[in-house]
Amino acid sequence: MDEFRLIGAIKRAVRGPIDPRVEIGIGDDAAVLSVKSGRLVATTDALVEGVHFRFDMSRPADVGSKAAAVNLSDLAAMGARPLALLVALEVPNAMADRDVVSAMRGLAQVAAIFGASVVGGNVSSGPVFTMTVTALGEPCAGRVLTRAGAQPGDVVMVGGPLGSGALGLDLLEHNRGKVRTYPELVRRYRRPEPQVELGMRLAAEPGVDAAIDLSDGLASDLGHVLAASCCGARIDADRIPMHVQALRYARLRGLDARIVALTGGDDYLLLVAAKPEVVTSLLSAGMTAIGCVTKRRGLVIESGGSRLALPAGSGWRHR
Amino acid sequence: MDEFRLIGAIKRAVRGPIDPRVEIGIGDDAAVLSVKSGRLVATTDALVEGVHFRFDMSRPADVGSKAAAVNLSDLAAMGARPLALLVALEVPNAMADRDVVSAMRGLAQVAAIFGASVVGGNVSSGPVFTMTVTALGEPCAGRVLTRAGAQPGDVVMVGGPLGSGALGLDLLEHNRGKVRTYPELVRRYRRPEPQVELGMRLAAEPGVDAAIDLSDGLASDLGHVLAASCCGARIDADRIPMHVQALRYARLRGLDARIVALTGGDDYLLLVAAKPEVVTSLLSAGMTAIGCVTKRRGLVIESGGSRLALPAGSGWRHR
Repeated sequence: MDEFRLIGAIKRAVRGPIDPRVEIGIGDDAAVLSVKSGRLVATTDALVEGVHFRFDMSRPADVGSKAAAVNLSDLAAMGARPLALLVALEVPNAMADRDVVSAMRGLAQVAAIFGASVVGGNVSSGPVFTMTVTALGEPCAGRVLTRAGAQPGDVVMVGGPLGSGALGLDLLEHNRGKVRTYPELVRRYRRPEPQVELGMRLAAEPGVDAAIDLSDGLASDLGHVLAASCCGARIDADRIPMHVQALRYARLRGLDARIVALTGGDDYLLLVAAKPEVVTSLLSAGMTAIGCVTKRRGLVIESGGSRLALPAGSGWRHR
Repeated sequence: MDEFRLIGAIKRAVRGPIDPRVEIGIGDDAAVLSVKSGRLVATTDALVEGVHFRFDMSRPADVGSKAAAVNLSDLAAMGARPLALLVALEVPNAMADRDVVSAMRGLAQVAAIFGASVVGGNVSSGPVFTMTVTALGEPCAGRVLTRAGAQPGDVVMVGGPLGSGALGLDLLEHNRGKVRTYPELVRRYRRPEPQVELGMRLAAEPGVDAAIDLSDGLASDLGHVLAASCCGARIDADRIPMHVQALRYARLRGLDARIVALTGGDDYLLLVAAKPEVVTSLLSAGMTAIGCVTKRRGLVIESGGSRLALPAGSGWRHR
């Protein structure tokens, strides 16, 4: 790796449309951005080879795409409009420059879809390939959504079918021969789509009290909302939306689809707690109601009218 | 490592004074900051174990301190006022939580000195300890300093004595027994001090045409300024300031101190190209004039009236 040559190739690969909000992009000691609203939303998240992905299961462009998506998903959970990404790479000496450039191209494509420019970064060597992304955005509706604020009586809603990311990973690890039978699962694992537009719509809806994105699994992430909001929730596991391929693959694997939907991570869909009067509006935005917020602390999961217990140690690992 | 317990300990360790610019700090999907000026300066840089530091040469708190410093130094080179840091950690499974917390405490202390709050981050496992920091700031004088803008006739000035960082590393690698004889060199290597105040003063001085921070060595970093500004420079190596301990240690090692000053990295001091009329003001700010910008491209280095050639392959490695 010739660092300066690689940086030159990356610069060309991530060049997007001209963004008047970017005063200075890649190439100086720092980027300079226009933040007209006077408020900035900022988050950082890393994808580490061997921890969050493996190159025998995802191509470099998938990894870059996902690195952008998981960060944009955090902006979406705040209801923010994306502005820019910064990317710090750790590159093993043996990795081909063209794979690094592919990863950055994958990242830049997703960034461009959601209106973010790649404005800076850093290239270092390191033992495994790592993409650490910082996503910057602006509140778009005068307010941001947070985890705190859920209230008893709120309806819990999710932005799409759950469990596909987790099952896509399972498929790649244990059933490579069946990848073509369940393309949606593999796609959801490799290239999750951040719900940026939905997040901005939610921020503009005053009845939305709290939001989070589902990265570690419904039970775990809803738990963060409940802890921050000092309340509990009752979820009807039978109402959690799942993709038909997820249901079929779970059956093939002998897995309880409800448990997968509750504990599987890597979905990067939004979850909100919203007042009953906005439920119709959120249903029309494609969300699904799956339960309600309760005054009594704790998370109660029901299925077929009786309580469903999650298996011990059902926390999520990303790979 | 219990991720959530570690995050709790980190949160306590990095808690600084209340900053009214931080609307939402650590603990939600993203941080929310007030950017009153409407302009943001953003940069990211990583310290990777085995690449940029080794734990037998730096303690965890040194690493955290330096991770903050190298990023704040990039803000300083833009003349920006620090606002906030985000920190993505990769933590080997065998690393003790207390060492991770020490590193974060070291980082937070430096951040606090320069008025930046630690507002977010991420913890992941990984094969080696890595701190990837994103530093956010605001222009403080209505403009930012860039690498472009140097003009023929400008004076090249540096913010302090060069070569100490590189010699500190050499000392730790080859002369551990002499560490106490040259404390300044070790301190400069382990805990460089970003010239944040100087950077803001420079931005307020209209005669300063270009700036950069010296991380990879004077010759290399000045080269970036010249490339961005489409001009050349003539440097008098005999005028480059060096600390007395650097001169003595270079002599002990049989190194040409001028070459060390020109090619050694890890100094994190500012270099500017400034109009002659502001030189007096910059001298009073502690800077030293070492040469001038020329219309003719290329970097000419002189010493004792004749040209000095840099050894081939004298690029800088940080460890």
